[in-house]
Parts: sequence; C-alpha cells; structure tokens
Amino acid sequence: MNTADAITFLRRLRAIRQFRAGAIPAAARDDILDVARWTGTAKNRQAWELVWIERPETLRAVGAVEGYAKHVAGAAAAVAIVMSGDVVWEEQDVFDEGRLSERIMLAAAAHGIAGCVGWVDGDGIEAAKQLLGIPREKRLRTFVSLGYAAEQAQPARPGHGGRKPLAELVSYERYGRQSRS
Amino acid sequence: MNTADAITFLRRLRAIRQFRAGAIPAAARDDILDVARWTGTAKNRQAWELVWIERPETLRAVGAVEGYAKHVAGAAAAVAIVMSGDVVWEEQDVFDEGRLSERIMLAAAAHGIAGCVGWVDGDGIEAAKQLLGIPREKRLRTFVSLGYAAEQAQPARPGHGGRKPLAELVSYERYGRQSRS
Repeated sequence: MNTADAITFLRRLRAIRQFRAGAIPAAARDDILDVARWTGTAKNRQAWELVWIERPETLRAVGAVEGYAKHVAGAAAAVAIVMSGDVVWEEQDVFDEGRLSERIMLAAAAHGIAGCVGWVDGDGIEAAKQLLGIPREKRLRTFVSLGYAAEQAQPARPGHGGRKPLAELVSYERYGRQSRS
Repeated sequence: MNTADAITFLRRLRAIRQFRAGAIPAAARDDILDVARWTGTAKNRQAWELVWIERPETLRAVGAVEGYAKHVAGAAAAVAIVMSGDVVWEEQDVFDEGRLSERIMLAAAAHGIAGCVGWVDGDGIEAAKQLLGIPREKRLRTFVSLGYAAEQAQPARPGHGGRKPLAELVSYERYGRQSRS
C-alpha cells in the first residue's frame, strides 16, 4: 500500500456519534473483528473478549446506562470490549483496551463506517454487564459504536476537534538533554 | 484507499524487536508524530507529550533500565509516551497510551518501519524519567522502539504469535441473550 495513502487514512480518523440508518455488512463486521483479533498484546495474553451487538433494543439499553456511551443508542452496531478483570493486569488490560478500540475504529473506517469510543461509568458498569451477561469480575468499560455517518454528522466535539501543534506535544531528545524543537 | 488494502495493512502489523542499522528519515518521523497527534482522546484532553529519542546513548540507557523495553537499545529511534500523571484521569491516560502506541506502530509500518511496544517497570520508571528529564509526577511507562527490521527478525514471541480463533474471542448479541456464534 502507498505510504502517503496509509498516512492519510490514519490521520483522518475522527470520532463520529451521529448515524444514519443502515446495517453493517457481514463482510465489514468480520474484517473489524479480525483486525481486532490481531491486536498486539504484551506476552500475547489476548485477555479480551468482544461482544458484537446489533439488536436495537440492546444498543438503546447500553446507551441509556450511566456513562459516556449514549451514542451507542443510535448506532447500527457496537463492540463491547470485555477484559480479564485480573487486578494484577489491570494497567495492561486498560492499555490493550485502547489499542483494540483504535484498531476497531480504523478497520471500520476502511469500510467507510464511522464510530466513536464510549465508556460506561458509575452504576452503568454493572448495568452494562448485566445487559450482556458478562460476569461481574470481568472489566467492561468500553463500547465502540459503529454505523454510517449521518449527513449532518460532525466530528465529536465540533469546535474542539483541533489538535495542539506538534511543538507543544513533542520534544526531541538529540543533544544530551531534552529540548523543544 | 482501497478497503481490502487497508484491512490487510491493519491486520499485518506485528511487533518486531530486532533491527538493522539505518536511521529513520525525517519525513517518516514527522508522519509518525503527526499521526500520533491526531489520536482521539476523551474530551479532547490530549494529555500527552511525546519524546522522540534517537541518540544511541539514550536508546541504550532506556533499554538498560528495569522493565520490558530492552529492544529500545538496538532501535534507530524510540518514542516515549508521557502522560499527565493526574490520578483522577489515570485510567483514561492508560487507555489513550494504548491508542497512541497503536497509531505510532501503524504510521511507522506505513513507512516500512518496524517497532515494538515496551514498558519500563519497577525502578525503571523513575530511572527513565530521570534520563529524559521528565518530572516525577508525570506518567511514563511506554516506549515504542522503531527501526528497520533485521533480516533475521521474527515477530516478537515466535511460536506464540498466533491468535485465538474468532469463535473464542467474539460473541454475537443478536437473539436476546449473548450467544457464541
């Protein structure tokens, strides 16, 4: 694949929370899940399970629990990321959850499908586990909503979607001590 | 970009820890950092700073501290991911660190550059902060090593690099209760 195309593809990923009607084709679903499957993980633990959700009632119920995943209610599908819940590995689990989320979003984008990462929070955590039949001892925070972007969809947080310039985010360690470039 | 090419590109990413000589071109470095810059983050916090490391002495010193980042010693460059360290946001920081790592690896791969995620651990955490002049209150765990893959390079953990089949990782919530497909 062309380098410039790949970089543009990566750079253009934006979170979208407003979806129009339209189911995710099975081929796209399978690609998304397969790209997730190949996510790198320390010690090759693969300590995750994914739940593919496409029943509208369940999507709406997930979107209704406490947290920041309300956009799931209007999505065509969502992926719930279930981690081991092993306290010894908690930091690793959260890190891997971030890697997985990014790859799910990118694989969806490759199919022209938009999405957004949402977290359940507070009482919403246990409520979401109950909805999906996930054992209490597992970790469940992240839902990635997926669907075709609504015509009027804006990247999440319009007006705040910019980024700090590289000079504020990066320093270059070249000359014996850290220096802003 | 072609959907199939993008999916293949995403799926093929593998961690590589053995590098041959060869510096990272400035254009690749800039693309990698720019793709990192556009990483999604809750509330658009962008609570990270990146340190681009390419001095061999520093790479070797990072590779020598306690932890699982020894491969940094032989890399052409490494990116240190420095997070806010704000305890209220710790879980979010770790999650974003995972997203950033994945994007850095993918942007590098778009340039034919390999890499591996490494964590410093134990005393290595403070040692790495001292090496880079990072304030103690910040979080610093992750280094992404980057370089051209050695000819004999194998994906990290050869023999363990496979993946569980989808049927073990995914369940499909379609019929009112969670069911293995």
